[in-house]
Amino acid sequence: MEIFNQLESNVRGYCRSFPVVFTKAQNALLTDSDGNEYIDFLGGAGTLNYGHNNPKFKQALIDYINSDGMTHGLDMYTNAKQAFLESFQNRILAPRNMHYRMQFTGPTGTNAVEAALKLARKNTGRHTIVSFTNGFHGVTQGSVAVTANQKYKDSVGMPLPGVQFMPYDGYLGDFNTLEYFEKALQDKSSGLGHPAGVIVECIQGEGGLNVASKEWMQGLQDICRRYDMVLIVDDIQAGCGRSGTFFSFEEFGIEPDIITLSKSLGGYGLPMAVVLLKEELDSWKPGEHNGTFRGNNHAFITARQALEHYWADDSFAKDVQKKAAHLKARLKEIQAKHGGQLKHKGRGIMQGLEFKSGELAEAVTELAFKRNLVIETSGSEGQVVKVLTPLTIETEQLDRGLDILASCVADALSENVSKAS
Amino acid sequence: MEIFNQLESNVRGYCRSFPVVFTKAQNALLTDSDGNEYIDFLGGAGTLNYGHNNPKFKQALIDYINSDGMTHGLDMYTNAKQAFLESFQNRILAPRNMHYRMQFTGPTGTNAVEAALKLARKNTGRHTIVSFTNGFHGVTQGSVAVTANQKYKDSVGMPLPGVQFMPYDGYLGDFNTLEYFEKALQDKSSGLGHPAGVIVECIQGEGGLNVASKEWMQGLQDICRRYDMVLIVDDIQAGCGRSGTFFSFEEFGIEPDIITLSKSLGGYGLPMAVVLLKEELDSWKPGEHNGTFRGNNHAFITARQALEHYWADDSFAKDVQKKAAHLKARLKEIQAKHGGQLKHKGRGIMQGLEFKSGELAEAVTELAFKRNLVIETSGSEGQVVKVLTPLTIETEQLDRGLDILASCVADALSENVSKAS
Amino acid sequence: MEIFNQLESNVRGYCRSFPVVFTKAQNALLTDSDGNEYIDFLGGAGTLNYGHNNPKFKQALIDYINSDGMTHGLDMYTNAKQAFLESFQNRILAPRNMHYRMQFTGPTGTNAVEAALKLARKNTGRHTIVSFTNGFHGVTQGSVAVTANQKYKDSVGMPLPGVQFMPYDGYLGDFNTLEYFEKALQDKSSGLGHPAGVIVECIQGEGGLNVASKEWMQGLQDICRRYDMVLIVDDIQAGCGRSGTFFSFEEFGIEPDIITLSKSLGGYGLPMAVVLLKEELDSWKPGEHNGTFRGNNHAFITARQALEHYWADDSFAKDVQKKAAHLKARLKEIQAKHGGQLKHKGRGIMQGLEFKSGELAEAVTELAFKRNLVIETSGSEGQVVKVLTPLTIETEQLDRGLDILASCVADALSENVSKAS
Amino acid sequence: MEIFNQLESNVRGYCRSFPVVFTKAQNALLTDSDGNEYIDFLGGAGTLNYGHNNPKFKQALIDYINSDGMTHGLDMYTNAKQAFLESFQNRILAPRNMHYRMQFTGPTGTNAVEAALKLARKNTGRHTIVSFTNGFHGVTQGSVAVTANQKYKDSVGMPLPGVQFMPYDGYLGDFNTLEYFEKALQDKSSGLGHPAGVIVECIQGEGGLNVASKEWMQGLQDICRRYDMVLIVDDIQAGCGRSGTFFSFEEFGIEPDIITLSKSLGGYGLPMAVVLLKEELDSWKPGEHNGTFRGNNHAFITARQALEHYWADDSFAKDVQKKAAHLKARLKEIQAKHGGQLKHKGRGIMQGLEFKSGELAEAVTELAFKRNLVIETSGSEGQVVKVLTPLTIETEQLDRGLDILASCVADALSENVSKAS
Repeated sequence: MEIFNQLESNVRGYCRSFPVVFTKAQNALLTDSDGNEYIDFLGGAGTLNYGHNNPKFKQALIDYINSDGMTHGLDMYTNAKQAFLESFQNRILAPRNMHYRMQFTGPTGTNAVEAALKLARKNTGRHTIVSFTNGFHGVTQGSVAVTANQKYKDSVGMPLPGVQFMPYDGYLGDFNTLEYFEKALQDKSSGLGHPAGVIVECIQGEGGLNVASKEWMQGLQDICRRYDMVLIVDDIQAGCGRSGTFFSFEEFGIEPDIITLSKSLGGYGLPMAVVLLKEELDSWKPGEHNGTFRGNNHAFITARQALEHYWADDSFAKDVQKKAAHLKARLKEIQAKHGGQLKHKGRGIMQGLEFKSGELAEAVTELAFKRNLVIETSGSEGQVVKVLTPLTIETEQLDRGLDILASCVADALSENVSKAS
Repeated sequence: MEIFNQLESNVRGYCRSFPVVFTKAQNALLTDSDGNEYIDFLGGAGTLNYGHNNPKFKQALIDYINSDGMTHGLDMYTNAKQAFLESFQNRILAPRNMHYRMQFTGPTGTNAVEAALKLARKNTGRHTIVSFTNGFHGVTQGSVAVTANQKYKDSVGMPLPGVQFMPYDGYLGDFNTLEYFEKALQDKSSGLGHPAGVIVECIQGEGGLNVASKEWMQGLQDICRRYDMVLIVDDIQAGCGRSGTFFSFEEFGIEPDIITLSKSLGGYGLPMAVVLLKEELDSWKPGEHNGTFRGNNHAFITARQALEHYWADDSFAKDVQKKAAHLKARLKEIQAKHGGQLKHKGRGIMQGLEFKSGELAEAVTELAFKRNLVIETSGSEGQVVKVLTPLTIETEQLDRGLDILASCVADALSENVSKAS
Repeated sequence: MEIFNQLESNVRGYCRSFPVVFTKAQNALLTDSDGNEYIDFLGGAGTLNYGHNNPKFKQALIDYINSDGMTHGLDMYTNAKQAFLESFQNRILAPRNMHYRMQFTGPTGTNAVEAALKLARKNTGRHTIVSFTNGFHGVTQGSVAVTANQKYKDSVGMPLPGVQFMPYDGYLGDFNTLEYFEKALQDKSSGLGHPAGVIVECIQGEGGLNVASKEWMQGLQDICRRYDMVLIVDDIQAGCGRSGTFFSFEEFGIEPDIITLSKSLGGYGLPMAVVLLKEELDSWKPGEHNGTFRGNNHAFITARQALEHYWADDSFAKDVQKKAAHLKARLKEIQAKHGGQLKHKGRGIMQGLEFKSGELAEAVTELAFKRNLVIETSGSEGQVVKVLTPLTIETEQLDRGLDILASCVADALSENVSKAS
Repeated sequence: MEIFNQLESNVRGYCRSFPVVFTKAQNALLTDSDGNEYIDFLGGAGTLNYGHNNPKFKQALIDYINSDGMTHGLDMYTNAKQAFLESFQNRILAPRNMHYRMQFTGPTGTNAVEAALKLARKNTGRHTIVSFTNGFHGVTQGSVAVTANQKYKDSVGMPLPGVQFMPYDGYLGDFNTLEYFEKALQDKSSGLGHPAGVIVECIQGEGGLNVASKEWMQGLQDICRRYDMVLIVDDIQAGCGRSGTFFSFEEFGIEPDIITLSKSLGGYGLPMAVVLLKEELDSWKPGEHNGTFRGNNHAFITARQALEHYWADDSFAKDVQKKAAHLKARLKEIQAKHGGQLKHKGRGIMQGLEFKSGELAEAVTELAFKRNLVIETSGSEGQVVKVLTPLTIETEQLDRGLDILASCVADALSENVSKAS
């Protein structure tokens, strides 16, 4: 591993928590260069909803490569893109009666967010975007402006104009944060002015698994409609089935103006990102937002496989919902065992446990890795241990991982008690 | 093709110039769904230096996929990354006596640029970046701020602070633009202040194939040293051999503080981007600049193949230089045929012809496509027809493409004459 | 009056509400060119605390002019400035055990605010200033950024970076807005980051006579101390005795890091502004914040007179407090007469009545002018009729003005009722 | 003088160069508290064109005060303002066939500049203002953004968006800087974009007495017209007769869209500022740009006196021109005496001598003060000794001052020689 220390920048992160060289991965199982196996509760930070190297998609990718199908084509038309578009229309949009145009941005979530922000500003002629406490949307300059975490903002080295933060659902306890938002919009002298749009996650993945309620999200959409603001739902981490439905807002009955997708969209862990936008917002001039790798054809191939295999009917969604319920029960069990020391967070297969401190949470994940479970923290202090395992994980493995997690929590908390005493 | 018109955003661009569905690609040859073949002088806008689906890399990629090697691993250690790092060290850095750390950013050029700008600002505590007329560095908010083309800047909808533009080499005719730059640095009342750094391309790809001279680039580095500014060379389009050497600045004898690479780095057209940075600038905290697809392992596999096959000795570079000389001779020939109507631009296999107007240049590329040559324009008015063909193109194909180009130029110019008369 | 319409810009404002030419003014009485007299409840928007052309100061000013004392001296030392400094030290700072340096900025309130904001940012090396809903601090670019009213912000034509707004005391009903502020400071992922400082008015003059409580202001100072933020109290309108004490925060027992004063400071309505700053914040380099008219010597002369005549003991303050109590009683009486249609606002001689709409409030002030009372509105909709009469107004005049006000309120409300029915 | 050191902020500047307490001033003569007299070549940095305490204006001011004329009236109509408007129309605008609206901003130059910048941005809907190397326009946030001197910009602590600097006339030697400006405007990929407007001084006072030529200013206006940009001439220091005509651009035959005036406009050194704007740019809503001391009535009184006494015919202008010619001859003489060590700068009674260093120039002004001449430096290094004496200075005093200056230059240069050897 010498070469990593010697050549790689200090910026490398996850490899510090899991200091082994991984050589193989299958569904929710990782193998390192010494043959050790690990259960994966990190799930590529939401990218591996269908597991590592899903065997259902693999052959299609190999066939495409063998056939010399276009790998790189900028935004030229290819048969791979054509097939993906058809599947997305047939498996996702049409069954949900959704009507959106698709923009293929550079294949990273942050690039989709940048495009969405431009659209909100271009279409309204205004500049302020409202984002929410604990929101995360990426680290390029436009996205990091709407990201709440100061760690990322500081590294830009300049103030980031055009953004105002509002408290997310539940941030002020029982006080309805939308009341504040609406008062500030009504009041011409609130300092908020008339924003161009709003960007929001239904489940805040990096922010600590905070969940917006149905009422809040409906209220937010209502405010956006009444004040003529573009509603952007960033579904990059919570989308593609992780919440139990394809989009994380399906059960809310809302219809965002813009939706960003990435991470698990490509199906196989390959870089891909799209912006779904209402036709009336499609004011782009040709090439106005470009990027070399927009239209990653390998990802189109596996993305289409994912849609055809998992979203042709509702059986997969139901299975995810069942697993999510099981996960919730088990986490609540762990919580119950440790009195007021833990708090259950999240929904779908995007749940976790909040500890009293980031140190405690980190102690749990460090212990977990020693016991062959790969799991990470989130939240502003890293205080939430987050279960983001592949949706396709076998129940037996899920339970095995949760057993390890339960033991690590118990040990970390008891060690903490003994340290304190 | 109905599905594209129906679902895809207006932002789609290249597909409008080449309205066919491509189904196959091999080296410099594209095939559409009707079996028509096209010579590719676009080269993925600099991404396909080693041609489409290079057969030398293909099997390694398929083997890796078949072995269930890690596809997606955030920035965890994998054997694929390890092997790539070793090759980059052995084939690129060590032979050139270059000492850099490597940061794997989100796999797009613009993400690498965003990271580079952050580093310049973080390390100096200052905020102004000097960029140059006609420079292009990407369209996310940080990158587009240093991009000169107003089309991209306008779509952000806000002023973009922290950037001042200076005239590129040759922009003011015989007047040495570095004299102006240095005067403005010396003069505490010039309005420029003390910039954090400078970002520059040695050959401006999107800007119209403008070329900086050795003296100018050396002078620029000298200014950066004397005024303690970070010198960033954006080698995303001109790097990876396109100029005739791996880096576009090798013959200048300079040593940038930061280098951005992407496009052809992955070898096979797969998304990948890196920032090379001097160790003393590596002030990143772990995870401070992150991204889901940083560390695209498929790209590591093919990137390594590219390094091992093409950069183990200097034979490939010499071959590129020979082709570049041939290309230059043929373009000069075309230029000579049409008196003062054309101007030769560029160097390496990044050359072209500047026309009196964007309309004329577009007439040429439209005609070319009808004659089965895929070629595009660049420059602030789209007035430069640009040859960016794979470096691996067979000489016979190169000549065939140039024959088509010559005929299209002749026809477009004569038609123009007849229109005018 | 033709010349005004012909030559003066549309930007002229108050003259539209009071379309006569004023030729004479004495204490709280204005006289127009036709000899009509008006009671002045506008008080120069807080500039005429000591009345128009206070006879106690007049001779000193004339004597200084007659003696050819320096009128204009940039920031050179003059005997006028010397005497003013001594009086300010002896009559204001020393008796209150306050220790501040004084900066004479350009003689406008907004200029003092601009200097204060620079100091907060310079001294902390951070850039965000927290300002509050309904706050007003001026319309130059730095000041308007911290001003809440969108009317003023829009005219800048760009987003104004470096500012975040927080809800003022009472803005969220019973919810303690400082709880939100502190939570956002504690939470590294709230989007607020670590601000450089806070700017606040104890009584929001333009914002509609909102009043911060003692507890809230103390809590705010406490937060500033604990989070190392510069506390700026903008006392430009509420200062110089208007609240019943010289500074509007005296009864709160707080000690702001920076205080801005202007408006009534010069005593006679002459342009003057100062920044009071703690010695440890005095990081200015000589001349770093400059301005042609900083150090308006005529204003020094009258300002000193005001300090010597009104602040040598507490009799003036007590008189103001008595008048304020009387004013409050009478306004409450008017309020009581009109059931739930009015709301009493403000404190000191900075009180008013809030109406259900700006139209109603305007109807009152228009009617008042017809009945020879000059009075204006404030608030985000202009919905608050504001009594800002000279502190030196004779009780009989005050009552006469309030009689007129009461009659106008009654008539406007009854007319409104009849219109509605 | 203890009180100054004890109470006044470090920001105080001129008083450090002239550490005495001034008690009296008449035309170009200053008297300190010890009765010492000084010739004033500083002239209030351009504010005292008509001398200190001009006896022609004094009585009118005293009469107005004695009559209890409105001192402070916000922007209400007063007889003082009326008379000023009439005089400005009759003595300045009408004779020059100029058609402008007048906006009375807060009574500081920087406030007028802030209003002018807003107008340029509001009226075009664009945000970039082009300013020039060595330009000075004030230190509030909008004005300092277009000010070139980094000392002032740094104290804001943030990047200042919406501004691009271009080289002033002569900045690039023989290269015509307007060629660069126009090329950057024509080129959609220059990084400049389409600016809202241009702000320029015809003579750069703070910037070191750089002078724009007639051809350059005409060319600049021509560019502004052709590219639909608002031309703002900042005539705050060079206006009101200092150049030899009332406006500094009269001999150029240009017609700026906006003109800012302040400093000597009030005549007596009293704070006053106006924006002259073309009617078609008068898009202000009532009160949109406000300020407590806009409409300083004392200044209206003296300003009118100045117009009536000095601008009713051309005799004053001719006298100024004669003095300017004399001044030029004498400065050239000094220059000639010292070979290549000095350079003559400026025009009108706004001329000076540029030294090889700021230290040398400062040595001259320090020596001058010891010899009872008050004179200051300007330029980015303080390298230009600047003669800004009242236009009304008696010839004998002018010559006496120049004699002192000549001796100080000789002594400082010879001392410098002896130091060096």
